[in-house]
Amino acid sequence: MTKIAIAELESHIDETVTIGGWVDVRRDHGKLIFMDIRDGRGYVQSVVLPEHAEALEVATTLRSEDVVLIEGKVNKRPERMIKEGQQNGTIELEVLGIEILSKAQELPFDHDADLNLETLLDFRPLTLRRKEIRDIFTLQATIVQAYRWSLIQQGFMEFQAPALVGGDAEGGAEAFKVEYYKDRTAFLATSPQLYKEIMVGAFEKVFTIAKIFRGEKSATTRHLSEITQMDFELGFVKDHTDVMKVLEQVIRDVSKAVTEQHQDIFERFKTTAPAIPEQPFPVYTLAEAQEILSKEFGLTDAIGEPDMEPEHERKICEWALKEHGSDFVFITHFPTAKRGFYTHEDPENPELSYSFDLIHRGLEINSGARRLDNYDKLVAKLESKGLDPKKFHFYLQAFKFGIPPHGGCSTGLERITARMLDLKNVKEATAFPRDINRIDSLLSKEEKSTEAGKGSETEA
Amino acid sequence: MTKIAIAELESHIDETVTIGGWVDVRRDHGKLIFMDIRDGRGYVQSVVLPEHAEALEVATTLRSEDVVLIEGKVNKRPERMIKEGQQNGTIELEVLGIEILSKAQELPFDHDADLNLETLLDFRPLTLRRKEIRDIFTLQATIVQAYRWSLIQQGFMEFQAPALVGGDAEGGAEAFKVEYYKDRTAFLATSPQLYKEIMVGAFEKVFTIAKIFRGEKSATTRHLSEITQMDFELGFVKDHTDVMKVLEQVIRDVSKAVTEQHQDIFERFKTTAPAIPEQPFPVYTLAEAQEILSKEFGLTDAIGEPDMEPEHERKICEWALKEHGSDFVFITHFPTAKRGFYTHEDPENPELSYSFDLIHRGLEINSGARRLDNYDKLVAKLESKGLDPKKFHFYLQAFKFGIPPHGGCSTGLERITARMLDLKNVKEATAFPRDINRIDSLLSKEEKSTEAGKGSETEA
Repeated sequence: MTKIAIAELESHIDETVTIGGWVDVRRDHGKLIFMDIRDGRGYVQSVVLPEHAEALEVATTLRSEDVVLIEGKVNKRPERMIKEGQQNGTIELEVLGIEILSKAQELPFDHDADLNLETLLDFRPLTLRRKEIRDIFTLQATIVQAYRWSLIQQGFMEFQAPALVGGDAEGGAEAFKVEYYKDRTAFLATSPQLYKEIMVGAFEKVFTIAKIFRGEKSATTRHLSEITQMDFELGFVKDHTDVMKVLEQVIRDVSKAVTEQHQDIFERFKTTAPAIPEQPFPVYTLAEAQEILSKEFGLTDAIGEPDMEPEHERKICEWALKEHGSDFVFITHFPTAKRGFYTHEDPENPELSYSFDLIHRGLEINSGARRLDNYDKLVAKLESKGLDPKKFHFYLQAFKFGIPPHGGCSTGLERITARMLDLKNVKEATAFPRDINRIDSLLSKEEKSTEAGKGSETEA
Repeated sequence: MTKIAIAELESHIDETVTIGGWVDVRRDHGKLIFMDIRDGRGYVQSVVLPEHAEALEVATTLRSEDVVLIEGKVNKRPERMIKEGQQNGTIELEVLGIEILSKAQELPFDHDADLNLETLLDFRPLTLRRKEIRDIFTLQATIVQAYRWSLIQQGFMEFQAPALVGGDAEGGAEAFKVEYYKDRTAFLATSPQLYKEIMVGAFEKVFTIAKIFRGEKSATTRHLSEITQMDFELGFVKDHTDVMKVLEQVIRDVSKAVTEQHQDIFERFKTTAPAIPEQPFPVYTLAEAQEILSKEFGLTDAIGEPDMEPEHERKICEWALKEHGSDFVFITHFPTAKRGFYTHEDPENPELSYSFDLIHRGLEINSGARRLDNYDKLVAKLESKGLDPKKFHFYLQAFKFGIPPHGGCSTGLERITARMLDLKNVKEATAFPRDINRIDSLLSKEEKSTEAGKGSETEA
């Protein structure tokens, strides 16, 4: 099946070509039929003229989402009909012949129907075909590639962190339990943290794109059960600022890639590519940020809190954009007690930690820190948190046998995608989101009660 | 902490520099101490001379895996002392000062001790630091990057396939069950197949690097519970050969990358980079391959079998290398009944399918096919396999609403890594392998019986 990509049609003017794709829209204009045809990367307007009677006859039977092969002639549009800045805006495809490869059933709604998120997700295999939803995942693919590319350029090595783990490392109640070979129990990883640290012991600078799983009981616009984390960790840092430097370079590289490649997407989403300052990203300690929130926005209740509320994250981003021309702002020095057990305290003020969040357009998209690296301190810390060091004996080997001062951080792929496009809910930035109510389809009430009553036999 | 990478030392001859790393080996030679120092990517031999008394005093206290910062002078070696083809073989670092960042406890064994796989895995955080094990994961990182790069060059878009799924899609008994929010059940994905097909409906050519999970009851040298699959799928294929063309290009690109970057690794593993023929990879139908096995190797029992035994895979690879100079060989047309329900039959002989395996140095590393694309046929096929189409209603939308003829395949990252380096067991090519007996540490018998007796409370 020799077909050319629709995105390449403009370099075939006056040629007869074959394209393959989906009928995006069909419009009957009396004796003419116009069809927008879509393939993996392209859109083109085609026209079926009365003189091609056979093609016209087929065209009248077509509906949206039918898959066709079209033989057609690439005609230059008259000057006044050119659609500036649009893919294939300078041409139109004159249809000479149509072969139907797959007939679609009648769609439950048009591609431009205004749907709520629940319906968008119920019909995901269909709604993924909408232009604005294809845009989201096209941008997301660029983000993840640029993220990796930047880390590789900075000397990091990729590794595969495990999803199945033996214990709930952080002792939280959020880890999902797995029935492992019937009579054993495993858990799903809530973070690749411990494995990153082990890998630093061997490779110094490592990254992983890892799935993590969190049994968040609350259905919010910022939480998912299954998350794609872009994690890195490096040795020989003096403190968290060395981690922030690497991350800032990554974010600059990612922003450059999306700015260069996806202006059209940002326009369709009525937003812009991220604002990146010439100066380094603004950095505030949590206390400094709270001071700003209080003084500039009257949010006096922010003062002294151990973390930032969503409203605080939004306001500090407003401030960073206004004062520094930056869509990214670092907040540092969160209370040691509020971060993971592996977080390094600030030696000058052990109540606070060498930790940071990166906030983008009102949402924390990354969290990082320098980590503890002293074996004895780490064991003492585990004990003080009520965790049993014996359960960490595998991990603790990395510390027993020499590990440099190190740190790292983790970016949520769905969160950064959602904020770049100003999406209301991270689920919109997840091709197949899982939450307390949904795995592909809504989890039914009936199933829920059956399950609770008789164990775990249902597969649906 | 301004340190330079050890791999860059040769461009700093006669300069005084600071490096950071691990003491790989220390050798006392009377009044001199030699130390091999290792960082993320490099090794260098350093020497502590008597005239640097303070450094010498520190050096006498050092043991393997201590982490140090070393100030030193980069000296060119005399001509006769140059180690040809070795990183930093032209220089030696004269140690001027040593700062200890992390003391290692005494190692349970030397880095060059001959250990069995169980011990290598029990002490993974330590044994990952061995040169030959670092080699494995360095090569693996190159494989996965080259694989992705090739697919991106060929117009494929990356997406994130889910690990948590609502049902065991293929109806096998191998899927692990997850306790999902206490009263619901989810499963771990055994394949991203259905999601790839959904994505083809939207993006035409897609790939994903996805974790899959299989409750393999047998502990073999080729099976793992958690596997990294490199999967792609594309629309508008005529049959499986269009998929094979894309895959062959990917494998050529991967082989080129490892050949160019890792000759030293292949040498250390006493093997070579994969042999790639100038001609296309050899392709045999299963029947043709069995004919060769019978005629050339006396394996008459191969004839008529529905699949290939490990011994058959090894022999057909011997043949392909001898006759075609290829370390890769395609086997096609497996019985339809033996492949996934979504596999397209060969219309000229529906007992056989448009399927293929790619075998590399005696092991199947990839499996692929053209898929069914007709909605009614797919539903009928599900029913004939005893599967309930209702449980597939989400997935089936992709077929209801127009999907082109399509196909794809899946490469096991651990398998291709293991075969390239001639490793006996795929676990050696997995940083943190999981199997029926192990998640990081061995799962204890005691735990097993406790678990079976009282439910699932133990976390260790």
